[in-house]
Amino acid sequence: MVELKLIPVEEFKRVRNSSADKYKKLQLIADMCRANTLVEVKRAGSGHLGSSFSAMDIVVWMYYEEMNTLKVGFDSPDRDIYFSSKGHDVPGLYATLHSLGEIPDEKLLALRRLNGLNGHPDIGNRGIEANSGSLGMGISKGRGMAWAKKHFGRGGRVYVMTGDGELQEGQNYEALQVTAHHKIDNLTVIVDNNKVQSDKPVAEIIDLRNLEEKFKAFGWHVIRIDGHDFRQIERALVEAKQIKGKPQIIIADTIKGRGISFMEHPAALEIGKGLYPWHSGAPDDAAFEEGFKELIQRINSDLGAVSLDPLHLTPVEPEPKAAAPSMLESEPLSQAALERLSVKPTDEYVSRAYGQALVELAAKRKDIVVLDADLASDCKVRDFENTYPNRFIENGIAEQDMVSMAAGLARQGLLPVVNSFASFLASRANEQIYNAASEKSKIIYALHYAGLIPAGPGKSHQSLRDISLFSALPNCVIIQPCNAEETRMALDFCVNQTDENSALRLIIGPSPRRITLPAGYEIRLGQGCQLTAGKDAVMFAYGPVMLHEALLASELLAERGFGLSIVNMPWLNRVDVKWFAEVIKPYSTIFILEDHHPAGGLMDNLLAVCAEHGLMNGKQMIKFSVEGYPACGTPQQALAYHELDGLSVSKRIMKYCG
Amino acid sequence: MVELKLIPVEEFKRVRNSSADKYKKLQLIADMCRANTLVEVKRAGSGHLGSSFSAMDIVVWMYYEEMNTLKVGFDSPDRDIYFSSKGHDVPGLYATLHSLGEIPDEKLLALRRLNGLNGHPDIGNRGIEANSGSLGMGISKGRGMAWAKKHFGRGGRVYVMTGDGELQEGQNYEALQVTAHHKIDNLTVIVDNNKVQSDKPVAEIIDLRNLEEKFKAFGWHVIRIDGHDFRQIERALVEAKQIKGKPQIIIADTIKGRGISFMEHPAALEIGKGLYPWHSGAPDDAAFEEGFKELIQRINSDLGAVSLDPLHLTPVEPEPKAAAPSMLESEPLSQAALERLSVKPTDEYVSRAYGQALVELAAKRKDIVVLDADLASDCKVRDFENTYPNRFIENGIAEQDMVSMAAGLARQGLLPVVNSFASFLASRANEQIYNAASEKSKIIYALHYAGLIPAGPGKSHQSLRDISLFSALPNCVIIQPCNAEETRMALDFCVNQTDENSALRLIIGPSPRRITLPAGYEIRLGQGCQLTAGKDAVMFAYGPVMLHEALLASELLAERGFGLSIVNMPWLNRVDVKWFAEVIKPYSTIFILEDHHPAGGLMDNLLAVCAEHGLMNGKQMIKFSVEGYPACGTPQQALAYHELDGLSVSKRIMKYCG
Repeated sequence: MVELKLIPVEEFKRVRNSSADKYKKLQLIADMCRANTLVEVKRAGSGHLGSSFSAMDIVVWMYYEEMNTLKVGFDSPDRDIYFSSKGHDVPGLYATLHSLGEIPDEKLLALRRLNGLNGHPDIGNRGIEANSGSLGMGISKGRGMAWAKKHFGRGGRVYVMTGDGELQEGQNYEALQVTAHHKIDNLTVIVDNNKVQSDKPVAEIIDLRNLEEKFKAFGWHVIRIDGHDFRQIERALVEAKQIKGKPQIIIADTIKGRGISFMEHPAALEIGKGLYPWHSGAPDDAAFEEGFKELIQRINSDLGAVSLDPLHLTPVEPEPKAAAPSMLESEPLSQAALERLSVKPTDEYVSRAYGQALVELAAKRKDIVVLDADLASDCKVRDFENTYPNRFIENGIAEQDMVSMAAGLARQGLLPVVNSFASFLASRANEQIYNAASEKSKIIYALHYAGLIPAGPGKSHQSLRDISLFSALPNCVIIQPCNAEETRMALDFCVNQTDENSALRLIIGPSPRRITLPAGYEIRLGQGCQLTAGKDAVMFAYGPVMLHEALLASELLAERGFGLSIVNMPWLNRVDVKWFAEVIKPYSTIFILEDHHPAGGLMDNLLAVCAEHGLMNGKQMIKFSVEGYPACGTPQQALAYHELDGLSVSKRIMKYCG
Repeated sequence: MVELKLIPVEEFKRVRNSSADKYKKLQLIADMCRANTLVEVKRAGSGHLGSSFSAMDIVVWMYYEEMNTLKVGFDSPDRDIYFSSKGHDVPGLYATLHSLGEIPDEKLLALRRLNGLNGHPDIGNRGIEANSGSLGMGISKGRGMAWAKKHFGRGGRVYVMTGDGELQEGQNYEALQVTAHHKIDNLTVIVDNNKVQSDKPVAEIIDLRNLEEKFKAFGWHVIRIDGHDFRQIERALVEAKQIKGKPQIIIADTIKGRGISFMEHPAALEIGKGLYPWHSGAPDDAAFEEGFKELIQRINSDLGAVSLDPLHLTPVEPEPKAAAPSMLESEPLSQAALERLSVKPTDEYVSRAYGQALVELAAKRKDIVVLDADLASDCKVRDFENTYPNRFIENGIAEQDMVSMAAGLARQGLLPVVNSFASFLASRANEQIYNAASEKSKIIYALHYAGLIPAGPGKSHQSLRDISLFSALPNCVIIQPCNAEETRMALDFCVNQTDENSALRLIIGPSPRRITLPAGYEIRLGQGCQLTAGKDAVMFAYGPVMLHEALLASELLAERGFGLSIVNMPWLNRVDVKWFAEVIKPYSTIFILEDHHPAGGLMDNLLAVCAEHGLMNGKQMIKFSVEGYPACGTPQQALAYHELDGLSVSKRIMKYCG
């Protein structure tokens, strides 16, 4: 890892207190915040640079010039409120709050870490006014706050930042029309119109057309500005405040990646051959160094131009290594155990296997069409798009519309495969999924990014409710495969072996280990398979993440002479009773390791079967699941926080069986 | 019940084959369909007259003049497709299909009956192309069909009817932008712009403003017509077909209730003192007779004007009474049992108790604000609106926006009480509910129309998944009270006794009986109460509908000497383990009667506790729940279909315990 340096808060004070022109100072501060944002994201290992940079000038203006928030304090009912609906730009907001002394260095350097700064906005972090990260909710929320301010006669205004891609979500239009109807005038929306969504131009994904016309048709006062020109930002905010009886929207034309030449749209898009490379994820060392150097050089040159000394940077200590697990133990772990606990993830991605299998299956099944909600790269359907452009439908960030369109396709005899992150697809389009399922035509839902890990993006993205959200659909099978091989089998099942709807639950990260399935294993509805034999207890788990932790637990327990049998159970709402009864027969204690909230997961399904068939006599059934809201942090931090890492699991088992 | 007469299909043929002018003939046919719609809805006892009538001229034109559908048949891939997104107008569509001989008399007279015609469009009924009734999905679905037609090179176009109030749903705007971006030109949307939503003018609820401007801003070709002028309808459809590379939308200005003077907007609104009385529900005998007479007189006068004989009407046989339950038995039921099975519902409405309690609580709790999504009358919050107009927020049909607004209000320290039907609120706003809950501020969700009954409106409205949809929220209590008294206690609990979010599940119809709670009963988190004592088995149930059936079963079983103890368990995801263990202790068989799908209901919650605390040894636990999709029909039909009526329940219990 490259050496990191931070611009300390004193340097911001120095610039602020200098005699330079106000606009020049803010330009300097914005660039300094960009530099710190880059460090913050590099340290975190992921984060959204592109939109942090496009929104940065506006965010800096808001906190330095426009709002009373820091003067009256975040606890004042009369404060101005700012929050970002898209939420991707939160690293830039953190850097701004840091520059004002509201966030200490060590916190800024703990982006996406347990007890650090959330990957998406979360009110648990000081200065964050609303949880966001799931798109399109901001204007509605902002209206609620603005309404309440009027109701209570409180001071302060509400400012909501939205993305442009985000405006594909229908909730925005609900909010636009209701806000205008309610004549809410203490709310100003600012669109960070940076023209690029996940990794393609908005105009290419789903064009928003003439935004000014649209917003006017919805009854808003519309102002359009260059979002990198402080004088225009200033004038727009003055104008907005003068409007009575009408909400105001400022369309700020910005540049995604603004501030580092090779991250700026459209140059970056050319480098990425049509894909914008800096939406999320951290830069590699070379890109980091080049970008940081460019920023610091420009800042120093700008400082010189106003007769200020060059920047003084603070070196950043390397991140402390996680304490060795043995430290947590009363008795130290064996060398073998320590090695097991420190393995690196593999290069297997079940999502990649899914994407490949989809392309292969589509060669025979001409009825397959693939739908995407602006996550084609993450969902690994880009290959399908390139191979079968006429059977790929890009829907933009509009999950409800995507699912209902799929219903229409299915009614015409096509087999739609609908893709998005589990947290968005299962919940936001839930009623549309029910409606489609009620027509008895068949749709496959690929629920990407299911489960607790990765835990950096935070609770808006971690999907721990999706099994429960699909479970009460009368005709839908829910499956989660544990490795690439089983992913191909599971997709084949969904496509070729069932008439029901299906929800294919997939983790998005690399498999922590390559799980070996029994020789000759074939996927069979309701039947899992035993991965390890053990005489003392049995544990059911699913998916690469939790099966790895289960196997780890079983290995750690084996060292202590405790035999834990691990069963891979990919069927989350179907069970072959005969098979299940046979598997649990030798055991009095049955554990379920859920990659889900305690309610509505695999355990509930198995228990229902046990109750119906009287399989529980003399047995206890215990689940370990993700209780409360999922923690944000590294995978290891989040797993340990929820006591779902292999070591914790082994200890919890010993409590019951020791 | 007044005597009903139907216009038989031969009469439509006579008019159709007459030599009258085409437009005159269609006007006659539309009015004749209106008359039959009135009969159909009167017979059903409920249904949507207002929008059936406003859309009628367009629907008649589509099937008689525009579309190839009946010529090529409903199975032809090259057929034109028409469906209504709002779905309320389906009685009018049925009458039109009946007039063309596609639906026989006896089916038309079985609206909202088991094996009859669904209360909202369902593809199970011949001629229905899409399930709808939950608003805002139509344009998306229609695009899917239109896309598939192009993909396969099939003939025929797709026509989707939407309401105007329905355009408050955000999904429409997702669909508008994606359809334009995809350049789908074989899809025409027709807005039945009748200006009135549930019971108030659209402009009053949430104004849609200039629709033409809006649709143009979204890239559609817009045509505006008088939706009751056949020449304009004809011209608009010709124009739409000529447009290439662009979807088309026809804004048809119509009159809600068109065809019967006192049902027409705005006259009807004046009669209703600001509330439109004919949105849903059947007319009483007097209104029916007056309306029917007006229609028949006009039709006969119009027939005379084109030298045709007056109408010949077919008398309608009275609806056969349901077979006496004893007929289903091997041994006849006792007189007492027969009397029990034939009780009429009471005049108790838990929703009314809720509405009253809300007004009372709000006197002390100044932080209560009430949100509504255009169902204020049904949700019984009209009193609150009138008593506290400044704390009542009308949000229109925009559940997602409503919930996120509530989140903003809660962040400012208010206590929002959010109202809608359970099926819409729990599912469509699910991600917004999660997001709000993750901010740890408190919101109360009133889930109206929860459960199987009433079963007439069909599966879009019956809510059998809402418990599961709320269950995996880490900080939300789900409660369903069994009578007015407990409803007041439950609301008081939500408002004053918990810091968690809460979901208050309420049936919408009258209580089948007044349930007597034990003397001195007070609501206690996780504890239910025993309603009847019985030594042989225990049954847990919740809500007025299922507790009535449970009590009925217990009474029927008592006659046979079988003692079934009934426990009212209002807590659907919380249980006091000690109390529960005590209650089930004497019994080896425990029954759960769910007003929910098998997955994710009360049973799953109780089982989890049993498994954790080893309470299942030597016991069996059996649930009776709503399997598959909920049946449409009278309450008795739907309950019997799912074997959840008291008689079926008693028989099922005997199977296990007999």
